[in-house]
Amino acid sequence: MLEKIRAPQDIKSFSMTELELLSEEIREAILNRVSQIGGHVGPNLGVVELVMALHYVFDSPVDKIVFDVSHQCYTHKILTGRKEGFLDEAVFSSVSGYTAPQESPHDHFVVGHTSTSLSLATGLAKARDLKKENHNVIAVIGDGSLGGGEALEGLNFAGEMNSNLIIVVNDNELSIAPNHGGLYQNLKELRESNGTCSNNFFKAMGLEYVYIEEGNDLASLINIFNDVKNSQKPIVVHVHTDKGHGYSFAESEKEKWHYNMPFDIKTGESMFKFDDENYNQITIDYLSNKIKADERVVVVNAGTPGAIGFTPQIRDEFKERFIDVGIMEEHAVAMSSALAKEGCKPIFWVLSSFVQRTYDQLSHDLALNKNPAVILVSWGGIGSNDATHLGIFDMSMMSNIPNLLCLAPASKEEYLKVLDWAVDQTDGPVVIRVPNKVVSDVKLSENTVFSKPHFNIIQKGSGVALIGLGSSYWTAKEVAGLLAEKSIKATLINPLCYSQVDEKTLLSLEKDHEIVVTIEDGIISGGLGQKIASFLGSTDLKVLNYGAKKEFTDRADVKKLFETYHLTPEKIVEDISLMLN
Amino acid sequence: MLEKIRAPQDIKSFSMTELELLSEEIREAILNRVSQIGGHVGPNLGVVELVMALHYVFDSPVDKIVFDVSHQCYTHKILTGRKEGFLDEAVFSSVSGYTAPQESPHDHFVVGHTSTSLSLATGLAKARDLKKENHNVIAVIGDGSLGGGEALEGLNFAGEMNSNLIIVVNDNELSIAPNHGGLYQNLKELRESNGTCSNNFFKAMGLEYVYIEEGNDLASLINIFNDVKNSQKPIVVHVHTDKGHGYSFAESEKEKWHYNMPFDIKTGESMFKFDDENYNQITIDYLSNKIKADERVVVVNAGTPGAIGFTPQIRDEFKERFIDVGIMEEHAVAMSSALAKEGCKPIFWVLSSFVQRTYDQLSHDLALNKNPAVILVSWGGIGSNDATHLGIFDMSMMSNIPNLLCLAPASKEEYLKVLDWAVDQTDGPVVIRVPNKVVSDVKLSENTVFSKPHFNIIQKGSGVALIGLGSSYWTAKEVAGLLAEKSIKATLINPLCYSQVDEKTLLSLEKDHEIVVTIEDGIISGGLGQKIASFLGSTDLKVLNYGAKKEFTDRADVKKLFETYHLTPEKIVEDISLMLN
Repeated sequence: MLEKIRAPQDIKSFSMTELELLSEEIREAILNRVSQIGGHVGPNLGVVELVMALHYVFDSPVDKIVFDVSHQCYTHKILTGRKEGFLDEAVFSSVSGYTAPQESPHDHFVVGHTSTSLSLATGLAKARDLKKENHNVIAVIGDGSLGGGEALEGLNFAGEMNSNLIIVVNDNELSIAPNHGGLYQNLKELRESNGTCSNNFFKAMGLEYVYIEEGNDLASLINIFNDVKNSQKPIVVHVHTDKGHGYSFAESEKEKWHYNMPFDIKTGESMFKFDDENYNQITIDYLSNKIKADERVVVVNAGTPGAIGFTPQIRDEFKERFIDVGIMEEHAVAMSSALAKEGCKPIFWVLSSFVQRTYDQLSHDLALNKNPAVILVSWGGIGSNDATHLGIFDMSMMSNIPNLLCLAPASKEEYLKVLDWAVDQTDGPVVIRVPNKVVSDVKLSENTVFSKPHFNIIQKGSGVALIGLGSSYWTAKEVAGLLAEKSIKATLINPLCYSQVDEKTLLSLEKDHEIVVTIEDGIISGGLGQKIASFLGSTDLKVLNYGAKKEFTDRADVKKLFETYHLTPEKIVEDISLMLN
Repeated sequence: MLEKIRAPQDIKSFSMTELELLSEEIREAILNRVSQIGGHVGPNLGVVELVMALHYVFDSPVDKIVFDVSHQCYTHKILTGRKEGFLDEAVFSSVSGYTAPQESPHDHFVVGHTSTSLSLATGLAKARDLKKENHNVIAVIGDGSLGGGEALEGLNFAGEMNSNLIIVVNDNELSIAPNHGGLYQNLKELRESNGTCSNNFFKAMGLEYVYIEEGNDLASLINIFNDVKNSQKPIVVHVHTDKGHGYSFAESEKEKWHYNMPFDIKTGESMFKFDDENYNQITIDYLSNKIKADERVVVVNAGTPGAIGFTPQIRDEFKERFIDVGIMEEHAVAMSSALAKEGCKPIFWVLSSFVQRTYDQLSHDLALNKNPAVILVSWGGIGSNDATHLGIFDMSMMSNIPNLLCLAPASKEEYLKVLDWAVDQTDGPVVIRVPNKVVSDVKLSENTVFSKPHFNIIQKGSGVALIGLGSSYWTAKEVAGLLAEKSIKATLINPLCYSQVDEKTLLSLEKDHEIVVTIEDGIISGGLGQKIASFLGSTDLKVLNYGAKKEFTDRADVKKLFETYHLTPEKIVEDISLMLN
């Protein structure tokens, strides 16, 4: 069947039997791709029928479908001219794992963060109304995404609209991990009463509402979408789907099969081995001991427990000392601020790409109030991420908020010392950037001053000073090695702090240095290097800033990126040599 | 009665008659202060009885009351030892208009942005539970604040809690302006059914619920708070209050009397005259014409129409081309992105202090998608604002987000040219910082390149180059004047763009300049000056960056602040002279 599909219209003439056959082929295609290059298994297998039914009933791209997070868009991509990205290994990379307008007119937004679809869809609907056009706008949002503030704002706005908007709530009873919050009790009640219980969150928001229990049954889905098509009021279609449907491993272990690295389809075994030692495990080991030793320590996370190694087993061990608030970063930060205010020791553990979802709470609720919460940022740095999940903005963003002491340790020992200090101190909020690569270097942890900027001189030299922040310290060290081969003994500095410069140490360089080189694993724009360049602007010292360009890169070739950014030791040495001549 | 009040316990022995009398005296005290120095009139007059009843029933500060936005905390301040700040003109300034822990242990957070109280209160409650303590936590949140994403996240979290949390929804049927969204239809239904209608947003969220119609009746309020005191479940107390209660002008014109400059108590007449010409009016005049000429133009605002001059009359004129989404900045940006994607021309008009509430949407929903929406930022710059409402962070924050073209025009003519260009262009999102002071200078608008950084050289000189961004251009011009008196003909530059440097123009300075001075009306940290210092770091040019320090100042003496920051023309000339010698 798949061979016949060039565009979504092609399925409109299919019989039910042909559609059923097609759904099986789509599942195979999805598994073909994710088993080889990884991807979102459960979310995509769960909505094969739902997405097919949408394309069967509606006329994309005139009717516009907006996927929330869009990690469940594989069937949509297969039906809209991009099936090769699932069938042919050679062109897998031509198709991203998220909606992408540059790939197809059937995709309307580049999306990867949660909770955005309702606001985006209301905008499409408002534009349609202003332009006096007449098509359907459909938002597809998972139950997990629904708890995020932006989604709830969008729902509130939709509740007052008086025109077509179809909100498909894809309820698979799970976020990445189990959901949290009162809203989810209501979804449960709605599922259990077949949508008839008296408390109805959506109706209370002013929306029309229908429920469908058979969320993986094509005929039922087609019927209901035909019913709501061209609705002149916003309407919620609450669909109960089965995450991982049609693939037994994913059906039975839903959390584990949300996102997977390459695996063997037959056995379900992962083909990917994690390094023996990683910062998730190092951190969890530390925290396990800490919560036993100190009853005020509490770990907070916003819907990504798996990404930080908090498996169901470890969550059981932490009990009420691990609070997963669901995908609600804003709430997580504000709540952490209040916990710290009352003498508890909250550690909000978040991924770099998502910490930007809570800027105002970091500034207004936390930093302004100087409450000593710890923000632990993982997955930061230049990598081959999707454009929606870059880890290069967190340091620049947070380093410009007052009262946030931001630290980027470089070694395992330094990290653990900084973390332990941060949890126990009571001066104010501390942000810690978790390093990427586990490197052991006891010397780096000898800096005992963490409470204020203290740039640690690891090697004293002259002429050239190399300041390498966090993971970039190791690049700076390599540069020092290469310079030594040229008989230049550079000064090597581990700054640790990136929210403020250590004025005394910087000024001490004036005497016998010409060039100060800064290296950081994030955008240069707004980062530590620019703070140093600014502070030294009135001196005779030359400053060279290295880091990422302020740009959205998409699944970049990291090696090439480092070359382009001149972030390799060799390139940096070349630049320095040019300046010295 | 007021004379007898030293602490909230003092009212617990009062009779009903004495309490009534006290409420009148409190209203007088509030009016005494706001009529002389301005403040939030309606919100405070509306909750006199509510706050008195809270303090009568609960035991602050053991029981903890968290005010949302906290602009309604005047009665609380009067009852908790700070009445002089309302009675005695000489010490008005010793008491801020928001809760402030540094003033009193009865205040738990510095708060000024909306929608934070629920998350903060759940944090206090969680801390209490972890510490096995046993007191009440009360959040007081207005209906307007309830629509914000952070509040909805907090409510969702509360719905799953199993311990004491009392959520007082102070429903005066108004945000600053009329509310928007489906939620508000439900609040209306609840009010009209005395809390008994079948659709109940709060119950659907898993919360217990009681309604009280007589929100300005002390006895009723005391009864209901006694009922819910020590509740072992989160419970919503939905109170219907009358905004502006007890002051006829404020009762009848509620939107106008939300916040007021000094006024005559007897006549209600404002004692404050606005300048003849201001940027609100200039912008509205422009937009009035633009919406007539182009049916795709639509103005979006998030709950602050009055602050940008959109009076009810002007809103009527704009009809569906003005969308006030309520206090939902995240939704506003995402919706604007989708409107722009579909060929509409949205202009999201927001205040500097609130644009930080939507960082992720600016980056992920808008900039990543390169949709040509316009973000118009008013009230930016160094001023005597409360610490919660500073206008110094917006430029730094936005200038480090890729794909956002950020422009800060300096004159009226330049502003109008930039605005008109931005609305019509289709390349991507454009941020415009609305200037503070209306200055006319046709010359500045001669820069016809707005689409990329183009630093405009207004006066060509040598030795010293002065780059003054936006409002700071006029400071740079004054500096040029003072330098001319010392026979130094400085180069004077209007950069306009603050998201990127104009490399060519900067490099052209190398030939015959020694010092580059940058001046901006916001924090130096992460701003344009540091981008320039970084870019010129490898040249022989010295760079001096001027702007605000990265800090939260509270109602600062602006003159002193400018002195401290060396932001006066005289100080800058002093610094330059020192460097030239």
